[in-house]
Amino acid sequence: MLGLHLILIVIFIVHGCSGGNILVVPVDGSHWINMEVILRELQSRGHQLTVLRSPNSWYIPEISSFYTTITVTSPEDQGEGFDPSLFSLLMQRSFEQNKMTPFWHFIEQLKDRAHTIHIFHSATLHFLSTILNDSIFLTRLKSTRFDLLLTDPAFPTGVILAQYLKLPMIYSVRWINAGEAHGELAPSPPSYIPAYNSLFSDNMNFLQRTFNLLLYLVSILIEEVFIMPVYSELLHRHFPPGADLRSMQHSADIWLMRVDFVFEFPRPTMPNMVYIGGFQCREAKPLPTELEAFMQSSGEHGVVVMSLGTLVSALPKEMTEVIAEAFSRLPQKVVWRYLGHRPSNLANNTLLLEWLPQNDLLGHPKTRVFVAHGGTNGLYEAIYHGVPVLGLPLLFDQFDNLIRLKGRGAARVVDASSVNVEDFVEALRDMLENPSYRDNIQRLSRLHHDKPLSPLDTAVFWIEYVIRNKGAAHLRSAGSSLPWYIYHSIDVVIFLLALGVAFLWVLIYACRLCHWSYRTKSKVE
Amino acid sequence: MLGLHLILIVIFIVHGCSGGNILVVPVDGSHWINMEVILRELQSRGHQLTVLRSPNSWYIPEISSFYTTITVTSPEDQGEGFDPSLFSLLMQRSFEQNKMTPFWHFIEQLKDRAHTIHIFHSATLHFLSTILNDSIFLTRLKSTRFDLLLTDPAFPTGVILAQYLKLPMIYSVRWINAGEAHGELAPSPPSYIPAYNSLFSDNMNFLQRTFNLLLYLVSILIEEVFIMPVYSELLHRHFPPGADLRSMQHSADIWLMRVDFVFEFPRPTMPNMVYIGGFQCREAKPLPTELEAFMQSSGEHGVVVMSLGTLVSALPKEMTEVIAEAFSRLPQKVVWRYLGHRPSNLANNTLLLEWLPQNDLLGHPKTRVFVAHGGTNGLYEAIYHGVPVLGLPLLFDQFDNLIRLKGRGAARVVDASSVNVEDFVEALRDMLENPSYRDNIQRLSRLHHDKPLSPLDTAVFWIEYVIRNKGAAHLRSAGSSLPWYIYHSIDVVIFLLALGVAFLWVLIYACRLCHWSYRTKSKVE
Repeated sequence: MLGLHLILIVIFIVHGCSGGNILVVPVDGSHWINMEVILRELQSRGHQLTVLRSPNSWYIPEISSFYTTITVTSPEDQGEGFDPSLFSLLMQRSFEQNKMTPFWHFIEQLKDRAHTIHIFHSATLHFLSTILNDSIFLTRLKSTRFDLLLTDPAFPTGVILAQYLKLPMIYSVRWINAGEAHGELAPSPPSYIPAYNSLFSDNMNFLQRTFNLLLYLVSILIEEVFIMPVYSELLHRHFPPGADLRSMQHSADIWLMRVDFVFEFPRPTMPNMVYIGGFQCREAKPLPTELEAFMQSSGEHGVVVMSLGTLVSALPKEMTEVIAEAFSRLPQKVVWRYLGHRPSNLANNTLLLEWLPQNDLLGHPKTRVFVAHGGTNGLYEAIYHGVPVLGLPLLFDQFDNLIRLKGRGAARVVDASSVNVEDFVEALRDMLENPSYRDNIQRLSRLHHDKPLSPLDTAVFWIEYVIRNKGAAHLRSAGSSLPWYIYHSIDVVIFLLALGVAFLWVLIYACRLCHWSYRTKSKVE
Repeated sequence: MLGLHLILIVIFIVHGCSGGNILVVPVDGSHWINMEVILRELQSRGHQLTVLRSPNSWYIPEISSFYTTITVTSPEDQGEGFDPSLFSLLMQRSFEQNKMTPFWHFIEQLKDRAHTIHIFHSATLHFLSTILNDSIFLTRLKSTRFDLLLTDPAFPTGVILAQYLKLPMIYSVRWINAGEAHGELAPSPPSYIPAYNSLFSDNMNFLQRTFNLLLYLVSILIEEVFIMPVYSELLHRHFPPGADLRSMQHSADIWLMRVDFVFEFPRPTMPNMVYIGGFQCREAKPLPTELEAFMQSSGEHGVVVMSLGTLVSALPKEMTEVIAEAFSRLPQKVVWRYLGHRPSNLANNTLLLEWLPQNDLLGHPKTRVFVAHGGTNGLYEAIYHGVPVLGLPLLFDQFDNLIRLKGRGAARVVDASSVNVEDFVEALRDMLENPSYRDNIQRLSRLHHDKPLSPLDTAVFWIEYVIRNKGAAHLRSAGSSLPWYIYHSIDVVIFLLALGVAFLWVLIYACRLCHWSYRTKSKVE
């Protein structure tokens, strides 16, 4: 990393206002959409925000009205950038894998997972190295006296930087390492907590529990083989001996969990995990005039809203034609967020938009069903507004997410890779005509809203709590710093077993001795 | 239970107001002091409260301005009643046990524990049988249409009744079965969560962890041998086959935990556990004129407040004289809640009171140190008002409670059974002169107050939540209804091990077969 060149675009506002001075290390993509909501709220309450970004950032703007940015650049970055077409490729591969036998499906998925992990963690390592190799930049960062580092630990830039700068740290988190964030800190009995991508619910039969346990072991393997070693050389160079990523990850003061238990299966949690699932949702605002007119034109039939999120830019042609054909058979109107070539068979009832005000559409009284890929942002919006979901999961956690909503009776799931017109129309009609989906998601919606403090206010409360109290060490369990074999009492159990065996051995030996001396005595007599 | 006679003093107000109709099944003694605070608050918010009590109740008044009572009587109860001198006896025995070797100490403690469990659970069984054998009473109870049963599950009257009446259930809880309530529902790794009465902290060495694991096993044994069997015949008679107490205990909608993590070691928890530790505390009210004059007369030295709670009525004479002598050597004034004979050596600086306004005294600016037995009510008041504690633990959880406060640097502990004047004076002077105790408890106090919602408001919110939503089943984990061997994946692990062994066996057998055929072939050649 010699010849490193660092451009600091706008930097280092020393803490001087009544609010806190917060260093933000976000994750790009849909994770940024989440983080931005919290940042806007923090800024409106008088906090100073400094966001660390890469010059090739996909979503994070360099210039913003509510935060300042530090763009970390090294010469090697020139012209480079993350290629979002990766996601379309992964989706294609996922469709192909669906046709394989379960074993090969599993192996191919594992390979894809290792590949994505490699791409993202290599980029993270590069970004981190650029920062940690620039001593002038680090000195200035230290002298800025931030009160707090706020990060999404899906990738550990923020985690390692907070440790380096010795700052209190807060997570906005759903995923960390190779699984859902709970699993990293809270006990997760594999008997009822389904592993990542298992597609199981919290009610498993014997065989499912067996596979689930194996999937847990695979997750641990992935972490140990593919993730932890990526950073070991960097940690060795910049931290005292013995520093390891896992204990750094465990050291966050507060974990703002992007989870709500109207959605997630109830499970063990920890005192410093705070639940803010759905914090990004808000009351619907009025729609643009044209769109409102389209919504009203649906009459009593109402509207189907479809969006497959931000990751995958375009679907395969066959799939879009199936969907377009299915929509054409409905009496409802359809608003479809659509990128790519217009399907040839599109009917008049369907409006294609390159971007749509998703939250406002879901909160519109005419909206009947939300056709979604199952990303959490969209699903929480559906819960917030009480709109049932027809899921077309494409990638990552989307399959698992939809299993949860389906389990609550508020969603149906269609296999995107093999969808045909009849099945899709049947699913749509079922969701439009059977009131149970709507009843169920509206019940979830009522429960989701029934809170002493809104999720966003909760997030802000705990961020300000950590600033006020300079951390929240008293909420971190002593277990989080124990090695795994001590945490699970493996050493104690082995010791007790050994003691038991030794005791038995002595007992048997003593018995034999008695027996032998008795026999000897008998013979002598 | 023939000839059962049941007196219903004031009963059955059918739900008709805007608030809820709540059936309360409290536990007597200091547990009632807790429960009463919640009931007052609920009544002030328009809820109807019906409290189930025994005619020999120790603390629960039959006539109250804020709840109605049902007094459950059977002829066998005439003149009977709980004898609180049991606690003084237990304390005496505990003092004697302190002089024994650790092994006999442990055995004697176990015997005492079994004895108290027997006394209390027999009384509970008698009370429950009286209720469940009276079908007319039960029919009327059912027809009252309660919205909720609120209970302290330290003894399972409320638990079993809620199940019988099919009512949503909320706990106000700290202890259940043979341990702290968390252990009943949330995973509790014995590597860092000290067992009941272990006197360990959350940072244990190898030997302590070994004992701690054994103490956990003892707890399980106590539950299975001394508690669960008490109720099996009753459950068999009044419930469908297969009904068991543990799954009934797990079925509560919300566990209002009388715990706060400024006091308790951080540990795994569950989504339906809500923390209300310190809910009984409130701002100090002005003291009676005479007491205020006494407080002011202390000048700059301030006042030591001493109270050993409600369980033990009188201390041994030698002990009170040691304490009186120690107090006489202080420049401070002392207010001492005292029952029994006045110590002969009492000095002028010490005021004895049969009852004292503890919360108001702890909130008084002249109060410097609180000498306490370590019951949670008193400790939370000390935290609330930021007064350091000199602990003289006598019974039950008091030893463990004080270990927690001592670990936070906010308390010192003196062994009540062997206390002498010099040691007690030294401890008092240290606490009065060394500012760290006060600094530490005031830091805890600030953290304790720093909450989005007060503990009492939190309790009321969740009680009303369960009334509004007719339960909170969506917050109960699927794990709580699994048998232990499934919960811990024991069956899956055995299956996988068997599979591994079988695989190895086949492999070895195949190798041998190859080897044999190779040798045979060689020989033939």
